[in-house]
Amino acid sequence: MPIVTFTTDFGPHDGYVGALKGVVLSIAPQATLVDIAHGVPARDVAAGAVALAQAASLFPPGTIHVVVVDPGVGGSRADLVVAAGDSLYVGPDNGVLSLAARGPRQIFRIESPAFRREPVSPTFHGRDVFAPAAGRLAAGAAASDAGSPLASMVELSAPPLHQRGGVIEGEVIHVDGFGNLITSLTAEVVGRAGSDATVEIEAGAGHFEPQLGRTFSDVESGALIAYIGSGGQLEIARRNGSAARRIGAERGTIVRLRSPTS
Amino acid sequence: MPIVTFTTDFGPHDGYVGALKGVVLSIAPQATLVDIAHGVPARDVAAGAVALAQAASLFPPGTIHVVVVDPGVGGSRADLVVAAGDSLYVGPDNGVLSLAARGPRQIFRIESPAFRREPVSPTFHGRDVFAPAAGRLAAGAAASDAGSPLASMVELSAPPLHQRGGVIEGEVIHVDGFGNLITSLTAEVVGRAGSDATVEIEAGAGHFEPQLGRTFSDVESGALIAYIGSGGQLEIARRNGSAARRIGAERGTIVRLRSPTS
Amino acid sequence: MPIVTFTTDFGPHDGYVGALKGVVLSIAPQATLVDIAHGVPARDVAAGAVALAQAASLFPPGTIHVVVVDPGVGGSRADLVVAAGDSLYVGPDNGVLSLAARGPRQIFRIESPAFRREPVSPTFHGRDVFAPAAGRLAAGAAASDAGSPLASMVELSAPPLHQRGGVIEGEVIHVDGFGNLITSLTAEVVGRAGSDATVEIEAGAGHFEPQLGRTFSDVESGALIAYIGSGGQLEIARRNGSAARRIGAERGTIVRLRSPTS
Repeated sequence: MPIVTFTTDFGPHDGYVGALKGVVLSIAPQATLVDIAHGVPARDVAAGAVALAQAASLFPPGTIHVVVVDPGVGGSRADLVVAAGDSLYVGPDNGVLSLAARGPRQIFRIESPAFRREPVSPTFHGRDVFAPAAGRLAAGAAASDAGSPLASMVELSAPPLHQRGGVIEGEVIHVDGFGNLITSLTAEVVGRAGSDATVEIEAGAGHFEPQLGRTFSDVESGALIAYIGSGGQLEIARRNGSAARRIGAERGTIVRLRSPTS
Repeated sequence: MPIVTFTTDFGPHDGYVGALKGVVLSIAPQATLVDIAHGVPARDVAAGAVALAQAASLFPPGTIHVVVVDPGVGGSRADLVVAAGDSLYVGPDNGVLSLAARGPRQIFRIESPAFRREPVSPTFHGRDVFAPAAGRLAAGAAASDAGSPLASMVELSAPPLHQRGGVIEGEVIHVDGFGNLITSLTAEVVGRAGSDATVEIEAGAGHFEPQLGRTFSDVESGALIAYIGSGGQLEIARRNGSAARRIGAERGTIVRLRSPTS
Repeated sequence: MPIVTFTTDFGPHDGYVGALKGVVLSIAPQATLVDIAHGVPARDVAAGAVALAQAASLFPPGTIHVVVVDPGVGGSRADLVVAAGDSLYVGPDNGVLSLAARGPRQIFRIESPAFRREPVSPTFHGRDVFAPAAGRLAAGAAASDAGSPLASMVELSAPPLHQRGGVIEGEVIHVDGFGNLITSLTAEVVGRAGSDATVEIEAGAGHFEPQLGRTFSDVESGALIAYIGSGGQLEIARRNGSAARRIGAERGTIVRLRSPTS
């Protein structure tokens, strides 16, 4: 029973998510369908990439992940099937697959008529390309049956860290639904800075120095805390509230880690 | 393994969606449950009907679609099982089934105790009538086992197009989660108007003439575009934004198609 | 095929729900996954408890309910597996399980390494404790395999009713997604008060006396109505609108039932 997961920005109002599922089940009735998230902010490719990456590696080998956050649909970007690790990824070539489909990978452009539903609507490749492709894969087709191989695909990459004296500068790379700020500073970098390091963040609402801790309940209600999050990166949260709102921070806001010796 | 889909306005906060699923699985443990959408705007029968119609026809034969957008629950409207095409539809007789359950159909009023969960709450037929009915159907009952046949049911119909000289006048029939406007002007009507036709829409934010094109990326970011959408009707979108907000349009807003010769 | 349900406050934006599902399927690939609700308001333990209780008892025997509304994650509260009735419940010891897991029950603290995913993140026990525990249970482990038994767990209990002369005073215990107010006044109490009793509620928007009725369509559009809801408690709704907004009511708002003789 192959597993097919769905991650989209389709929201909860329309039948678009259902359309994808109907197409997959019509081709592969025995597939197990799993919703990851359908509230990725509209057209936010980076947020979709993070949502998928938070979940994809935890699924069993052979899982097929369909991701549709696709503002360039019907334009020049390619439709992709990517084999990476022991999973398959199906979605547009705009970077949305790139954080989850890591390591050695094979990339194929979806060209085969068997992987499409004709006529293909220029505004809904989710229904007419990605879902049929996932259905074919779930029914046993190989990724290489989709079409010709590609040497590369669009990559999203974490912004580089900057070192200035004893200060390492990263940034917020994702704001989650709780308003927690996920940063580009890794556990390793934070570990090297030592337990006396201070975290600094400055945004619309001012300058903040969240206490370094382990989990939310290490600080009082309403206080900010910085900790190594479940994805292995420094996060900033507000106990019983939203750090994003308290700080006025968003994706791209600079976060500094200052070593005590600096 | 029969498929049972769910489309509701229950939202993401409560256990009501779970209640439906528990009832279905208690009667038909082998059913495959599929969520279509649970964020249909509260009590918006027309939006629920569109959401279901966007997805229903794509499911395999034998699929059972449960739809609960039901502001008249417990009142005089009937509870229905409808057989149409090769699918079954279960929901209130308020029009919410009528866009999806098209073509020759058989309509039955749910009356049999076996299709209900007693005592039936006058405010939650989803749990006490529609879910048990879907469970029975998934377990092999015939639609005609539900109760007595009805000759007709409440229909939602697309508003008629008006022709005035060289201008064909339709209207917005659905605003999707992206803010795209789906209109009553069909691909056929647009095709007959010719590629030089202009699209006009006027609402709270003024008068607009979106360029006719094929997909979002045919225009610059922020510009409006009119195109034949994935449902075969003229749609108006804003690239990288919401056409509904830009135009101030809503369901019922008039859209005009002007032929170049007029 | 064991059923595993999910109720969380993770929202629709992130991959956290997907992470739980991936972990369960990796341990118990044959499990049937069912979403109850993922839009419980962030950190609102009481609302999560109500959502679960609205649905849990309707599922087949043997169902495993995973609930993650967990503001105290990583702190001193225990991780629990609870066997109650013929179902299993997995979640934090903060009361979120207590409304659904009623009656005689056995409570176990999750301690066994087999029920955890190491290293356990101090901010995401959903992924690293509750999902693995549910996976083990779905794969056939006994609740008692989780760890040592506990004599009690945190309980949420309905606030007591107060009687003052012929007036019984309860309160709003849940506001649902439609804005309906679910109160602590039971059908039995309302029945004893008699059909001439009046309902009174006072909040930010003033004093209201909703008519007692059976269902929404018993009153005119826009009017308030009080009725015995699908959970067996007095509810207050506004036909075609939100009672919570109309009244300015929230959880804790006092509701009075006045007998005609008083």
